[in-house]
Amino acid sequence: MGNIFGKLFTITTWGESHGLGVGVTIDGCPPGLAISAEEIQAELDRRRPGQSDIVTPRKEEDKVEIWSGIFEGKTAGTPITLLVRNGDQRPGAYDEMRDKFRPSHADFTYQQKFGLRDHRGGGRSSARETVGRVAAGAIAKRILMAGTGSGGVEIRAFLTQVHNIAVPAAALAGFPTLAEVEATAVRCPHLPTAAAMIERIKAVRSEGDSVGGVIECRVRGVPAGLGAPVFDRLEADLAKAMLSLPATKGFEIGSGFAGATLRGSEHNDAFENRDGAVRTATNRSGGVQGGISNGEEIVFRVAFKPTATILQLQATVDKAGAATELMGRGRHDPCVVPRAVPIVEAMTALVLLDHWLRQSAQCGTFKF
Amino acid sequence: MGNIFGKLFTITTWGESHGLGVGVTIDGCPPGLAISAEEIQAELDRRRPGQSDIVTPRKEEDKVEIWSGIFEGKTAGTPITLLVRNGDQRPGAYDEMRDKFRPSHADFTYQQKFGLRDHRGGGRSSARETVGRVAAGAIAKRILMAGTGSGGVEIRAFLTQVHNIAVPAAALAGFPTLAEVEATAVRCPHLPTAAAMIERIKAVRSEGDSVGGVIECRVRGVPAGLGAPVFDRLEADLAKAMLSLPATKGFEIGSGFAGATLRGSEHNDAFENRDGAVRTATNRSGGVQGGISNGEEIVFRVAFKPTATILQLQATVDKAGAATELMGRGRHDPCVVPRAVPIVEAMTALVLLDHWLRQSAQCGTFKF
Amino acid sequence: MGNIFGKLFTITTWGESHGLGVGVTIDGCPPGLAISAEEIQAELDRRRPGQSDIVTPRKEEDKVEIWSGIFEGKTAGTPITLLVRNGDQRPGAYDEMRDKFRPSHADFTYQQKFGLRDHRGGGRSSARETVGRVAAGAIAKRILMAGTGSGGVEIRAFLTQVHNIAVPAAALAGFPTLAEVEATAVRCPHLPTAAAMIERIKAVRSEGDSVGGVIECRVRGVPAGLGAPVFDRLEADLAKAMLSLPATKGFEIGSGFAGATLRGSEHNDAFENRDGAVRTATNRSGGVQGGISNGEEIVFRVAFKPTATILQLQATVDKAGAATELMGRGRHDPCVVPRAVPIVEAMTALVLLDHWLRQSAQCGTFKF
Amino acid sequence: MGNIFGKLFTITTWGESHGLGVGVTIDGCPPGLAISAEEIQAELDRRRPGQSDIVTPRKEEDKVEIWSGIFEGKTAGTPITLLVRNGDQRPGAYDEMRDKFRPSHADFTYQQKFGLRDHRGGGRSSARETVGRVAAGAIAKRILMAGTGSGGVEIRAFLTQVHNIAVPAAALAGFPTLAEVEATAVRCPHLPTAAAMIERIKAVRSEGDSVGGVIECRVRGVPAGLGAPVFDRLEADLAKAMLSLPATKGFEIGSGFAGATLRGSEHNDAFENRDGAVRTATNRSGGVQGGISNGEEIVFRVAFKPTATILQLQATVDKAGAATELMGRGRHDPCVVPRAVPIVEAMTALVLLDHWLRQSAQCGTFKF
Repeated sequence: MGNIFGKLFTITTWGESHGLGVGVTIDGCPPGLAISAEEIQAELDRRRPGQSDIVTPRKEEDKVEIWSGIFEGKTAGTPITLLVRNGDQRPGAYDEMRDKFRPSHADFTYQQKFGLRDHRGGGRSSARETVGRVAAGAIAKRILMAGTGSGGVEIRAFLTQVHNIAVPAAALAGFPTLAEVEATAVRCPHLPTAAAMIERIKAVRSEGDSVGGVIECRVRGVPAGLGAPVFDRLEADLAKAMLSLPATKGFEIGSGFAGATLRGSEHNDAFENRDGAVRTATNRSGGVQGGISNGEEIVFRVAFKPTATILQLQATVDKAGAATELMGRGRHDPCVVPRAVPIVEAMTALVLLDHWLRQSAQCGTFKF
Repeated sequence: MGNIFGKLFTITTWGESHGLGVGVTIDGCPPGLAISAEEIQAELDRRRPGQSDIVTPRKEEDKVEIWSGIFEGKTAGTPITLLVRNGDQRPGAYDEMRDKFRPSHADFTYQQKFGLRDHRGGGRSSARETVGRVAAGAIAKRILMAGTGSGGVEIRAFLTQVHNIAVPAAALAGFPTLAEVEATAVRCPHLPTAAAMIERIKAVRSEGDSVGGVIECRVRGVPAGLGAPVFDRLEADLAKAMLSLPATKGFEIGSGFAGATLRGSEHNDAFENRDGAVRTATNRSGGVQGGISNGEEIVFRVAFKPTATILQLQATVDKAGAATELMGRGRHDPCVVPRAVPIVEAMTALVLLDHWLRQSAQCGTFKF
Repeated sequence: MGNIFGKLFTITTWGESHGLGVGVTIDGCPPGLAISAEEIQAELDRRRPGQSDIVTPRKEEDKVEIWSGIFEGKTAGTPITLLVRNGDQRPGAYDEMRDKFRPSHADFTYQQKFGLRDHRGGGRSSARETVGRVAAGAIAKRILMAGTGSGGVEIRAFLTQVHNIAVPAAALAGFPTLAEVEATAVRCPHLPTAAAMIERIKAVRSEGDSVGGVIECRVRGVPAGLGAPVFDRLEADLAKAMLSLPATKGFEIGSGFAGATLRGSEHNDAFENRDGAVRTATNRSGGVQGGISNGEEIVFRVAFKPTATILQLQATVDKAGAATELMGRGRHDPCVVPRAVPIVEAMTALVLLDHWLRQSAQCGTFKF
Repeated sequence: MGNIFGKLFTITTWGESHGLGVGVTIDGCPPGLAISAEEIQAELDRRRPGQSDIVTPRKEEDKVEIWSGIFEGKTAGTPITLLVRNGDQRPGAYDEMRDKFRPSHADFTYQQKFGLRDHRGGGRSSARETVGRVAAGAIAKRILMAGTGSGGVEIRAFLTQVHNIAVPAAALAGFPTLAEVEATAVRCPHLPTAAAMIERIKAVRSEGDSVGGVIECRVRGVPAGLGAPVFDRLEADLAKAMLSLPATKGFEIGSGFAGATLRGSEHNDAFENRDGAVRTATNRSGGVQGGISNGEEIVFRVAFKPTATILQLQATVDKAGAATELMGRGRHDPCVVPRAVPIVEAMTALVLLDHWLRQSAQCGTFKF
């Protein structure tokens, strides 16, 4: 259970790190969208291993294959299955994990839950699972750009922090372009900070260690009125989407945890009429009020812990419960956060698209 | 849409602030649990208005009525409907809101989404909706205590911060008792901090202002193996549950945002064999690894913004988009966080119980 | 579980025969529909006990109360709770059932499933549960009439058979008016057959016995393109809706079971251009092809078994498994089928409305 | 939408008749079941084209590939993806269908719903979609046999009617063995009737025509207490499952439509104590009372219309709405019913397994 996401644009991801492949099946995609394998591939290339010198050097091409649901270049309204074959595998490299639990990985908990587990490369708990999310998200992003009128909905995630190196608050004013984000391997649009981040990641890697970081995501072009009251608030669904990503430990929207330290008179976003539209003077709400978008930029942040795999000797136990040690080996990301940027964008697109469809159904179908 | 929560223990809350009442319908409750109206009432009394001198003085008894699903004192396995009549209403007090949007409330976004709204007291967007959550959560808590063996599952939420007054980290070591939490009106088990919080809330109220805060929630007694990989991770479902609460702006589990500033070698929780059980030496994971409980205490925090209603003149616009002003009036909570404690516990119980049932179904039904 | 119906227009019914009341909560209702308690009451009056001399003489007013979701006469887009208090109860009349299982009722199976049961009047298994369906269906019918343009969607159910008395096939050509259906207590628009049906029901009742029958339901005004391929075919969802009704034993659409005896050359519905529209020359498909409406009348039939409660001595067993006897007593319907007509219509409306919303979301939201 | 089935054992089928392949993804499979590709293949071989001289001579090997979720021969509790590549395709054979709607097929309705369609071999509306159902059903059947104790749950479907040739009622007493069903190409365990059915099918085929039929399905080994009251009655979910199959027009359980012609005194199933168990003397209920199994054999029937594709000239219209003619060509089943037997069994297994898991969760997790 738990491998299905979305109510109307529903995706199911499947596959293990060292099985034949990983993939996704989408049910509920609107028909008639022109989409090519290349457009999907472009997003997958942003999360691919080996894309820069600060990520894992594993050589996975991650070539997407379209198995169903797209006919003569257009979505047919039927289920879309996208499949990526697994490539650069070294299953022998994982023999030790058959019996030993890696600290702060899911080895122990999977064993406890299922009574057995595919130990090779983390099996289903591997971040390789997110290939399916990014592939499905590529279609969702395309729909949000092509189908929603005017400038479309733009989603932009980027790093604001690696370890204790953070972008200065003042440098975060505008909506970064994709080019600005992709300009450096860390996907931080503030170049001086990006340079320091890269240096830190390399230093940490050279010590066999790892670091975490923070991603901020902004969305513009979402009209007021998207979301839902009560349980399926837009921020609730975004929080779930983000905390469903490997290595995430926190989520905040708008003012976030810092908002708890303000007074109401400081925190409230006054409404004003700007150029004929109802707007807020400030955006501490993060674009969402009462679970529903208010037309401002949606702004949220996600915290990632440092990669659990480190090239150091660690104390642990084996399946029999006996104390033992484990030495991380092989090819890993000293910091997963740069590769998580397209994944955060994909999940954001999936949440927004699903709410768009719900909104259209409940409030756009009938006019009395 | 969006008023239903849970996959197997499914609750639907309904009702508006100034309608006949608010309530909840539960589908999927296990049969045979002995439960009384008094047990449910006890939880409702913890979120009730007028319970102390730092919360809203509204006089709502919030008396629960059991309309279905409980037969001769036991749950029957059929839908349970719990209903609380609305009492102390002053509908005239809200006439101004029919046309003006209160800043940082859901008035504008509801109007945009639905094209109309019940303006009286916020209607459906009122925190009064959480009555149904607390009532359903009371049953879920009871099941988790009575049905899970040994000491049961204990859920304890409490305040760690109001405005910029926070419990010292060193004071947070143990698992607070219910009596410790309930000892003060702010529900902070560290008495010196509690005293300062109460003083701050009163000071802010006297200025017609409001403050936010942070709740920490701990859970003990959850065995390893509860949760799900991928989308329905335990922390993802908890994050959604918490961000679905009014006034919340952030969620973090275990090390949270601070975890992003650590190295892997500092952050990883080493496994060890303690008294014959696999345990972790530290708990930066917050009791969850790969979306599944590891048997340690589950620990997470939720950020609340300051109450949006303040007794000050604020700039806003009306339904026609014209600039205007609004003066908050009436009876409000200068800080909603103390009354949110039982709500956080209720949502936590609902998430855990639902996962318990899923786990039992998938991994406990068949033994091959 | 199993008390929730619908994906987008979602209803949860609750309540037992002899509890405080029965009701329904609707989530997902489109906002802005003008609807009054009287309109809902009118449908409830069609299923009410005591409405004629061939149904149970129980005196239930079945007065609907609107508890939420309707504001100033219009649906607000928030959950609608409709409640009917239970009235004419004689709980003592059911003491014998506490221990004995009534043949062909749900007493034994509820006991096996839940380990306990509310034995009074069948508790949750009572057809009184359908009050909630009819109330929600009244709103769904109103939306399908008011919100879908031109003549709206009209749903008309009526009896075609009681015991072995059936309407002659030739008499079933047109679409009966509501007045024609309501003209007689059996709700059969063919008057000579209706008279014979009534006579049979009275004769059977005088012998303390009961009879079953068949309802046909026709729908006009559904455009081509509504439904879904594969699992959620329109006919599949209608079949589920009908077999979810108490006492139903069969469902068939279009040619139905008789269609199995035809050749393809006899059964196929040739397409033709009629007045500029694609139409079929015949309608053996029953208005649905490949799970999707084709614009013709939707036509299906539902079989009801004879009422299980009869005023005769029957052999049975008690909770201890010992052989015993049970004498049916009290006030019952000798034939439930006439009162099932509004219930069939309600469920049909719920299925169609849900598919309408899904269709609007997937295929009507974006135009590429 | 509509390509997902099941609440806890959830399957999504995908793929079109003339795409790369068809498949299924299962979420929620219990872990630890030993299952081989051969066991799945055995069921697929029962629905395969070309298996006998009365079915389509298309040469599809329908070789199943396991892409995920099975590790070292056992289900891992993670999503299982099963894939069958499409083989013997003649896409050119379908050029005419690009513009013309085949009578009583889904060409017109898909076009109306989606605005475009894969016309090759019916695309997604092809019965080839059921490959995924049978593959998933093979696993469900295995779980129901291996995991439920004693003799397991046995599901046996078979033909009782082709055209107007039906098995005599007296010949239907026992529970047929698999060998008896598989003894003839029509899967009718009554040999004289089977011989007549085969003769009729061949005669009809020689005239370029087709016939329908009826399948009966029986299940033994289901204990009392499985199912749900109200909407998710066992018979409701079975009815939906069956009406979701291509070419089905009717469903009835137990006494079915004939039950409508009986009196209550004739229809009721008296309870009795047989060998220490509560049993019914007759089984007009078909093994289900109030939506819940009563421990007797579950017995239902499904009506199939004659194959829509016939080798005769038929009147129809084209996409522009102009009258035209269409001549069926190529390789088709003159009667789809024999190949539908494993599909009916698969869907039955999926429904029962899902209810078993739900029952275990709600009523088997906690003992108070």
